[in-house]
Amino acid sequence: MRISPLLVDLYEITMGYSYFRHGKNEPATFELFVRKFPRNRNYLVSAGIDDIVDFLVNFRFTPDEIDYLRSLNMFSEDYLDFLARMRFTGDMYAIPSGEIYFPGEPVVVITAPRIQAQILETALLNQFNFQSMIATKGARVISAARGRACVDFSPRRDHGIDASIKVAKNTYMVGFIGTSNLLAGKIYGIPVFGTMAHSYIMSFESEEEAFKTFATDFPNTTLLIDTYDVLEAAKKVIELVKQGYRIKAVRIDSGDLVELSRKVREMFREAGLDLLIFLSGDLDEYAIDELLRKGAEADAFGVGTRLGTSSDIPYLNGVYKLVEDDKGPRVKLSPGKVTLAGKKMLYRVYENGRMVRDIIALHDEKIDGAEPLLLKYIEGGRPVREDSLDGGRERFRDAFSSLPEHLKSIYEVEEKYPVYLSEGLREVMARFGVKIERIQ
Amino acid sequence: MRISPLLVDLYEITMGYSYFRHGKNEPATFELFVRKFPRNRNYLVSAGIDDIVDFLVNFRFTPDEIDYLRSLNMFSEDYLDFLARMRFTGDMYAIPSGEIYFPGEPVVVITAPRIQAQILETALLNQFNFQSMIATKGARVISAARGRACVDFSPRRDHGIDASIKVAKNTYMVGFIGTSNLLAGKIYGIPVFGTMAHSYIMSFESEEEAFKTFATDFPNTTLLIDTYDVLEAAKKVIELVKQGYRIKAVRIDSGDLVELSRKVREMFREAGLDLLIFLSGDLDEYAIDELLRKGAEADAFGVGTRLGTSSDIPYLNGVYKLVEDDKGPRVKLSPGKVTLAGKKMLYRVYENGRMVRDIIALHDEKIDGAEPLLLKYIEGGRPVREDSLDGGRERFRDAFSSLPEHLKSIYEVEEKYPVYLSEGLREVMARFGVKIERIQ
Repeated sequence: MRISPLLVDLYEITMGYSYFRHGKNEPATFELFVRKFPRNRNYLVSAGIDDIVDFLVNFRFTPDEIDYLRSLNMFSEDYLDFLARMRFTGDMYAIPSGEIYFPGEPVVVITAPRIQAQILETALLNQFNFQSMIATKGARVISAARGRACVDFSPRRDHGIDASIKVAKNTYMVGFIGTSNLLAGKIYGIPVFGTMAHSYIMSFESEEEAFKTFATDFPNTTLLIDTYDVLEAAKKVIELVKQGYRIKAVRIDSGDLVELSRKVREMFREAGLDLLIFLSGDLDEYAIDELLRKGAEADAFGVGTRLGTSSDIPYLNGVYKLVEDDKGPRVKLSPGKVTLAGKKMLYRVYENGRMVRDIIALHDEKIDGAEPLLLKYIEGGRPVREDSLDGGRERFRDAFSSLPEHLKSIYEVEEKYPVYLSEGLREVMARFGVKIERIQ
Repeated sequence: MRISPLLVDLYEITMGYSYFRHGKNEPATFELFVRKFPRNRNYLVSAGIDDIVDFLVNFRFTPDEIDYLRSLNMFSEDYLDFLARMRFTGDMYAIPSGEIYFPGEPVVVITAPRIQAQILETALLNQFNFQSMIATKGARVISAARGRACVDFSPRRDHGIDASIKVAKNTYMVGFIGTSNLLAGKIYGIPVFGTMAHSYIMSFESEEEAFKTFATDFPNTTLLIDTYDVLEAAKKVIELVKQGYRIKAVRIDSGDLVELSRKVREMFREAGLDLLIFLSGDLDEYAIDELLRKGAEADAFGVGTRLGTSSDIPYLNGVYKLVEDDKGPRVKLSPGKVTLAGKKMLYRVYENGRMVRDIIALHDEKIDGAEPLLLKYIEGGRPVREDSLDGGRERFRDAFSSLPEHLKSIYEVEEKYPVYLSEGLREVMARFGVKIERIQ
């Protein structure tokens, strides 16, 4: 899906016009970061870097889009011509999709002529804020499911088309086994799942007839057993398996999932069957955690609405701020909203395979024994690095396994992950009268 | 933005396959409705009907999409061929975008061969649930702003591209004066707004120089005055106006908006200036209501994140259920989840220009003195009605002005709007053993 450069707040274009008129188009560095993490988030997951790279590398207003800007009667022809010829010619660093990051850390670093760097803000934030929020939500669900399979069932409640495919993509990246969404399956090559809805069962004279018909059409399938009476339906399933129908699993989508799943498991055990149990219906990390604590029997979860909208925290407040220009490091000093000045690099220290602290440093500073987390994706407008979705999946698996155990909680923990400022960065901030040693 | 029929949960296609194999493709009627309204919603606003009509009228799998379905190795060639030739040939009724509706009421009614009617479920719900949620959120913000202008500032936190343009569209429909989002401005012809960000001010040696430069480049503009010190900045603005700079408004985006806006208004009054005050920063209907109760001075609001994500309630649980097929009215009787059987029509009774009650009736039932709310959009696959965005704007204005005053509250009220079942519908339900006279 093309991201148009017109996905932009008007003020970016008006500021650009003023810079253009006054020849203020020297290189500047802007950084994307999340100042304060939302409730119950001990870590966030980088995501959408592929879309951001794609957007920048293909940045170009179409003639049609320039005509629209002209129709606003706000801009001169030479500025419109300048916009029509504008391509992204700068550098971009980012923490790769799938990697874990913490408050205040630069996640995307853009250095480009000021007008370019300014105009891309809206689309960049639109994609990053949403995708990182969803990847994080997915990671929390995976964490709560303790090894059980999870499938994205969210398209009917996601916020539109783009949201639906990117929910599927980012939840797959953090360990979901797949999605119900065929559009995402096609675009990203993600495995797709799904069998039947209640309306299918209702369209037959009896539940039994529906089961038989579907199991014949799709051998080794999953049957939905909560249209009428779950336990009665489970009996029918057992009977059908005994008659030779090939049924692999049952899904329960409503009712008391703890009690029903336990009873159904017991019935299957007594019958000597190892059918899988798939649970769905208003699930998220909190509900799954509670189900498992209460002893629900589940081999897999279908997770929809609350996942795809990240319903407990439906937005991420990532911001994109000027940190350096031709006059050197810049800073915004509003109360409670200090920006770390200067173009930066992010380092992570590992000990015994665990991440133990991060260090935010100046871009050219080297930190011994630490691993740089910001990788170069674009240099002088040309892409120099490309990540695959499978690569992101692997990266997340590695990152999550190196995350200190207590931070994997789906609730807020007291002992935050340590994020320090390097010596060089502390000195720069001191020049602005700000004494700061660590973010958290 | 084309809505691909591949925006579909796999189970719709598997059910379709089973129906196809067994010749179960008689006409069936499905209805979209919202059973229980979310917290603090006394009414909901219909929205996205234009996109749904467009989706249905242009429903067609591309060869590429059929190839993808083939690659799943689940379906026979004759089914794939059937899907490739599938067009929507049915009828569609809907409550027009901008109209107000209540719990349990059919909002979209589709009658079509069962497989068609089934397969379009996911995309239909994806668009309706999201757009109706946002239109409702926007209506609540408009209501809280009590006549003051509201502008959509949400693109950087919306859930992707499609979300961003549809937030702009639907908030404009319910009375916003426009959006910051140029892409939406271009697509829907919505007025666009925006001037400058903090980074613009910071890119100059002084705030004053930034103000002068911008006011020269854009006469009659709005200056952002909270980068450093709001009251100092307000003084500078007054000074510049006296020097002849043409400045129309100021925007305050942070700090104590009540206190700052009052002081700034006082300063403007003392200087004899009638500059407008524009407030923004983490606003929604609750925050605006509180600001105005506390006496904030505001002529306009920029509303972003919490609007575009409907953050207090980020999803709408609209469902799409089979209500009638060749065997007559159908019903699902799960506890607490009764579906009203039979293809229906919705009527509204007005008295003295106010809506006083709705009546859910059978499709062919006539209710004297009541106005039908479900209009025919598609007949036999052909569009027979088209609504404009301006038409939706007018429709919402009329609907909202006829809504009983107490229901306009942004908090839950005890006295719900009355929604009755017609005599005919009560009889049908009685046949299923369900005695029900009203929804609320």
